[in-house]
Amino acid sequence: MNKPISQMTRAELVFEYSELLAVYEQVKAEGLSLDMSRGKPCKKQLDLSDGLLTVLQTGEDCSNAFGMDMRNYGMTIGVPAARKLFAELCGVEFDNVFLGGNASLELMFDAVARAELFGVAPGMKPWSQCEKVKFLCPCPGYDRHFRICETFGIEMIPVEMREDGPDMDTVEKLVSEDEAIKGIWCVPKFSNPTGAIYSDDVVRRFAALKPAAKDFRIFWDNAYMVHDLYDGVPDILNIFELTQGTENEDLVYMFTSTSKITYAGSGISVFITSDRNMKHAMKYIGAQIISYDKLNQYRHAIFFKDANGIRKHMKKHAEILRPRFETVISALDKELGGREMAEWSKPLGGYFISLDLQAASAKRVYELCLDAGMKLTEAGATFPYGKDPKDANLRIAPSYPTLHELRLASQVLCLCIKLATMEKLLSDMGFFENGTTISLNIGK
Amino acid sequence: MNKPISQMTRAELVFEYSELLAVYEQVKAEGLSLDMSRGKPCKKQLDLSDGLLTVLQTGEDCSNAFGMDMRNYGMTIGVPAARKLFAELCGVEFDNVFLGGNASLELMFDAVARAELFGVAPGMKPWSQCEKVKFLCPCPGYDRHFRICETFGIEMIPVEMREDGPDMDTVEKLVSEDEAIKGIWCVPKFSNPTGAIYSDDVVRRFAALKPAAKDFRIFWDNAYMVHDLYDGVPDILNIFELTQGTENEDLVYMFTSTSKITYAGSGISVFITSDRNMKHAMKYIGAQIISYDKLNQYRHAIFFKDANGIRKHMKKHAEILRPRFETVISALDKELGGREMAEWSKPLGGYFISLDLQAASAKRVYELCLDAGMKLTEAGATFPYGKDPKDANLRIAPSYPTLHELRLASQVLCLCIKLATMEKLLSDMGFFENGTTISLNIGK
Repeated sequence: MNKPISQMTRAELVFEYSELLAVYEQVKAEGLSLDMSRGKPCKKQLDLSDGLLTVLQTGEDCSNAFGMDMRNYGMTIGVPAARKLFAELCGVEFDNVFLGGNASLELMFDAVARAELFGVAPGMKPWSQCEKVKFLCPCPGYDRHFRICETFGIEMIPVEMREDGPDMDTVEKLVSEDEAIKGIWCVPKFSNPTGAIYSDDVVRRFAALKPAAKDFRIFWDNAYMVHDLYDGVPDILNIFELTQGTENEDLVYMFTSTSKITYAGSGISVFITSDRNMKHAMKYIGAQIISYDKLNQYRHAIFFKDANGIRKHMKKHAEILRPRFETVISALDKELGGREMAEWSKPLGGYFISLDLQAASAKRVYELCLDAGMKLTEAGATFPYGKDPKDANLRIAPSYPTLHELRLASQVLCLCIKLATMEKLLSDMGFFENGTTISLNIGK
Repeated sequence: MNKPISQMTRAELVFEYSELLAVYEQVKAEGLSLDMSRGKPCKKQLDLSDGLLTVLQTGEDCSNAFGMDMRNYGMTIGVPAARKLFAELCGVEFDNVFLGGNASLELMFDAVARAELFGVAPGMKPWSQCEKVKFLCPCPGYDRHFRICETFGIEMIPVEMREDGPDMDTVEKLVSEDEAIKGIWCVPKFSNPTGAIYSDDVVRRFAALKPAAKDFRIFWDNAYMVHDLYDGVPDILNIFELTQGTENEDLVYMFTSTSKITYAGSGISVFITSDRNMKHAMKYIGAQIISYDKLNQYRHAIFFKDANGIRKHMKKHAEILRPRFETVISALDKELGGREMAEWSKPLGGYFISLDLQAASAKRVYELCLDAGMKLTEAGATFPYGKDPKDANLRIAPSYPTLHELRLASQVLCLCIKLATMEKLLSDMGFFENGTTISLNIGK
């Protein structure tokens, strides 16, 4: 049965539905434990960086050529060799690179916290003293960005995410009209979760934005900047370079990290911004910390040597991740292709596959999967306040499970999508009224 | 010449002053480069922990017995084995221990930032919405605590620091009367910089404090909890234990770190607080970070094994630090003893010697030292806003220089104190008026 659902008769629907139900009951009986919920690297990927563990073995290893001892206090802005590495990788000046701890999320949260408490520049009103603060949120997007906004009571305005980036007509219109809009979250390469790559045109329009708010900042989370699954994926334009020397010089807060290059929990994070923004931020960071962990920054500098070292390393990640992505996508193609039940992204990099259901409810599919022993990212997570207006989007994270588990997981996912779709169609036809016997009593 | 200055004639003063001047000019000519400005561990101390560097050498080493992979995401509150270690060391429950990154300063700054933004408990007004927020600051105290207050615009009220802790009559009176007083900074053991150890009575009075402000918190920075220079130093009472189960259960934010146990720049930090406070903090920390660096937390747990491992390790630090402290103190005793020029602490642990000048200006001594090639902590640093009302206190940090440098540094320090004292006395006598030839033209 591979007919598009629009062409199926009621009898065909009932037949397939009852078949699927039987399979689903079998799957449930197996007591699976599968997890495609978070963008966690798998063990094999983590193992790629185990050289980091022994790159500094003695006290002597911990000093650089200038006699700076990375074990001791000092160097608030970070280890020079590691700043140089990221200046090269990101195509920015050394002076514009600040190194944080193991989490760029913390750097983003803290950047928002500083804006709330102290304002984004000298003389600017702290956001916490503004009557209203709003952020634009391209959707579907990254739940942890949205959670930062929610934590600070920042109103989130969804903007449509397209294949080449956010809907820029809307972005330009909104930021130019509303002074309460102070920021936008962007994951410009392999956007979380759609995998979209911002086109040159989109990046140029961002660099030339004319926000009404003088304290508007673009939160440019380049988390997946070197996370290509295939050779020859085009790189995005360098928004930082585009803005330097223009009136938009202070527009961009750029972030990246090695969370998905080395260790998810023990990488290093990077904050790149203009001289003026950096000077302002350092005033507060200097009161917050003497420096982040310089040994770990230095480990990364020695381990990779230069930007090419990182790029070579990322090819090894691609070899591990590519078959994982392809396993899920080929299962979706095979099981759901042409059936008008869902559409899914075929990303060239990053960590996620985004799936949009045509008829079924994402919440229902999430629930069916969970009952069959498989955890997905919670339905709605990719939208502000966890509320997907169409209840249609699911984020699939294929990095963590083994290939064997992924094959199984993809089957379960497709099964649940079919089941939820049939259920919805049959329900709309009134099939479940009047005590029909084939009823599905799961979830909740 | 070892007379108390009060007993010296004008002629004796002039004679000694001119002698000192000649020596000072010689010292200046030597072009020294000495630094007693910050509480930085010396290389030998850092070397003690180099076992940390290789305690985790393979990916397998990075998982615990329950299969938790420390390299990956998860465990926001910290690595269980390391939480257990600090629960034991601090005499608190496992559940009340949160592990941060490499800096307890960051945990303190963030705790104040959360209070400013969100309030210290559900339903409490954020401090940033209060008309006035004040902190009590026992003085002399730690400049980085004061800088946090200054950064947040928190008004600092100095409270006298005594040998057994802050002046508790004043503390009790002020907090019970003024609802704007929201916190107090405490370094209860080997207080920075006097080395005072809070007596049992002082700790009990803190635990029983009755602040007018319901959102008052004690910032209990137990930075030097195991940093004894000698055997048999009495431990302080456990304030956390004293408050649990009382109406003051949520009164204490306790902090400590391994910055001066393992590496100053790459240790781990600890935040200990009540169940309710922890739950409230985790709501925000969970939005800020997925977890701090768990590999480094795990390294510490494996390296030390248990609280005794830490205590044994600290004896090695004491062996390195003790002669450094004794070198400075014996020079002060020998050169300045009985001369009524200064008083100095003789701490049993911690990182500092506190010195109070009787006649000379601390700023002048700082300046004279700097011109002779020796950096001290800036005069005034140990008081809020950098303003020492008596301009009398100097903080001496003997940990970083070598013993040889320290001998030299102590001589320079004593020389400058004598010089500044004589200068002051002679100046008060009108000696420098009318174009006297022996005039000192340095600094500025």
